[in-house]
Amino acid sequence: MNTPSSLESLIEALRCLPGVGPKSAQRMAYHLMQHGRPGAQRLADALQLALAALRHCQRCNTFTESETCVRCLSSKRDASLLCVVETPVDMNMMEQTHAYSGLYYVLMGRVSPLDGIGPGELHLDRLLARCGDGVVREVIIATNFTNEGEATAHYLSEMLRSRGVSVSRIARGVPVGGELEYVDAGTLAQALRERRPVAG
Amino acid sequence: MNTPSSLESLIEALRCLPGVGPKSAQRMAYHLMQHGRPGAQRLADALQLALAALRHCQRCNTFTESETCVRCLSSKRDASLLCVVETPVDMNMMEQTHAYSGLYYVLMGRVSPLDGIGPGELHLDRLLARCGDGVVREVIIATNFTNEGEATAHYLSEMLRSRGVSVSRIARGVPVGGELEYVDAGTLAQALRERRPVAG
Repeated sequence: MNTPSSLESLIEALRCLPGVGPKSAQRMAYHLMQHGRPGAQRLADALQLALAALRHCQRCNTFTESETCVRCLSSKRDASLLCVVETPVDMNMMEQTHAYSGLYYVLMGRVSPLDGIGPGELHLDRLLARCGDGVVREVIIATNFTNEGEATAHYLSEMLRSRGVSVSRIARGVPVGGELEYVDAGTLAQALRERRPVAG
Repeated sequence: MNTPSSLESLIEALRCLPGVGPKSAQRMAYHLMQHGRPGAQRLADALQLALAALRHCQRCNTFTESETCVRCLSSKRDASLLCVVETPVDMNMMEQTHAYSGLYYVLMGRVSPLDGIGPGELHLDRLLARCGDGVVREVIIATNFTNEGEATAHYLSEMLRSRGVSVSRIARGVPVGGELEYVDAGTLAQALRERRPVAG
């Protein structure tokens, strides 16, 4: 094909990005070299910087540039509540609700046997140590309501309850603003099963 | 959001990739930092290497690491034929046909007024100089059959013919193996209009 080796290497390297196959990688490489050289330089620099600077918060496991992240160091948060989420993005979503003032633990993944990720790969020992520190009173599990998220929630709640920790799960049901006509049957069935008494 | 600045910079830098919006960039950045650090390092290195090594062939304008690419230097190619394509990928597609032994000129783009790319942005002076070197007898225009590709072909053929260069365009029509029932009407109309006499 007479493709220069540095171009071949770049195409190959771009395939480490999630969702990028051979065709996309080729398109990205040609675009970067033809129209996006300043952007390519910025990307190379940003990758180097992030690799050097980013690590995991020793308390909540999210990405941070210091040993402990700003949120964990804040004295304004309720340290007796611990919310377990799958990713830093999920943590940001929880924060956007302005309905939670406790702390977090970020799993950085989920139990997913098909991808070879069992409970062992999630390093849950740190979460366990955190829950047993005498400060945490309630653990709120906010993993996704996907199969993997539910399996993770099940595993975590079994593990924590056997150690005497109080565990809760965020509610499933009809979304706010949702119309029954357009909600899927599974969600509606759950909303029915998990109905709550109306305070009178 | 308390996102570390090096992570913010990485998310921002990933948006220089074509087809990558804010959500994808975030997903890519988290993935790279959580599960793909060796890949991220390889990508940073490959970008640096490609930026340093890649340039345009002075004859055909494709990407190369030397002044003139291997194909242009080859004595086995017919230098009297010059095929004009939009991208290096298109050149590779032409090569895969094993039906062409001439040389190429890669536009590295197409006339696309909506994207602000006029004939001036394509640096056609080098193509013109090439066509007027006395060696090239026929220029075969193999730009895409999209609106932009057709506009580019039209512009090129006008420009070259006014300078007395013999210009041709690759054929439009029903694809090999194609059934009339499943070919779109526009293609079929073109195939009818551009019908060829059958050698008897």
